[in-house]
Amino acid sequence: TSVFMSNEALFQFLHSEIIQYVNSAETGESENGRCVSKLENMGFRVGQGLIERFTKDTPRFKDELDVMKFICKDFWTSVFKKQIDNLRTNHQGIYVLQDNKFRLLTQLSAGKQYMEHAPKFLAFTCGLVRGALSNLGVKSIVTAEVSVMPACKFQVMIQKM
Amino acid sequence: TSVFMSNEALFQFLHSEIIQYVNSAETGESENGRCVSKLENMGFRVGQGLIERFTKDTPRFKDELDVMKFICKDFWTSVFKKQIDNLRTNHQGIYVLQDNKFRLLTQLSAGKQYMEHAPKFLAFTCGLVRGALSNLGVKSIVTAEVSVMPACKFQVMIQKM
Repeated sequence: TSVFMSNEALFQFLHSEIIQYVNSAETGESENGRCVSKLENMGFRVGQGLIERFTKDTPRFKDELDVMKFICKDFWTSVFKKQIDNLRTNHQGIYVLQDNKFRLLTQLSAGKQYMEHAPKFLAFTCGLVRGALSNLGVKSIVTAEVSVMPACKFQVMIQKM
Repeated sequence: TSVFMSNEALFQFLHSEIIQYVNSAETGESENGRCVSKLENMGFRVGQGLIERFTKDTPRFKDELDVMKFICKDFWTSVFKKQIDNLRTNHQGIYVLQDNKFRLLTQLSAGKQYMEHAPKFLAFTCGLVRGALSNLGVKSIVTAEVSVMPACKFQVMIQKM
């Protein structure tokens, strides 16, 4: 299990290196917005790549909800070593995925003064979900918000094509 | 094992995203050198972090060779899912670690025309080794070269303090 642990740590360390680097490389007026969007795009491509390998031997999904359940269970477990704690939907194309202990936020210290950095720590994962869904034929917009750290919610809005 | 596989893929995808991003962000005269050095520095910090978690329960090492063996076996396996294939030393502070199928090069297509990109694909790992060694009290310079893809050699020169 120590190999496994270490691999999890590898992802966490790499993820924070990327945030730091993107943050320092994007200078200019709207640097914060650009930083978040760069991270989101990286996540998108990684999500596409991962889901392609991951669903090679998975049977077709029967509907949109079935796809979302797969993201919350199998996909989330593969990346974050736990499932999404709560999935809700309005049955009109909006899904809310709640993670009560989101791995990539546990590195960030708790406290209000760090809340402003939260978007940077969520952007990659928003992209990851959007990329995974996209490769499964579901076009979406994914946003995230922190409630009480390290809990957070990802909102998926399905874009009808 | 599919979770495990996916985690390995996650690292590979993230690694290539970082290379692409750093490559595009570093513009200027000596952009290639700067890109390599940024990647090396990221690897260094990730290596430091990983080894700290990884050697928490490991008994002290008896000498430098013992440390190098640990890097070649346990550390390499945790990151790259295989051991170093060959470790050689001149017993004067130079170690050559050969990996006959280096994971982060298998993504890069074979062929002479891609050889010029190889340094970018090795820089992060050079830093990773240097960071790991550094946290184990061994100061070093780590360089790498590709022989026939995806085989490569990492040369560690110990800096006596």
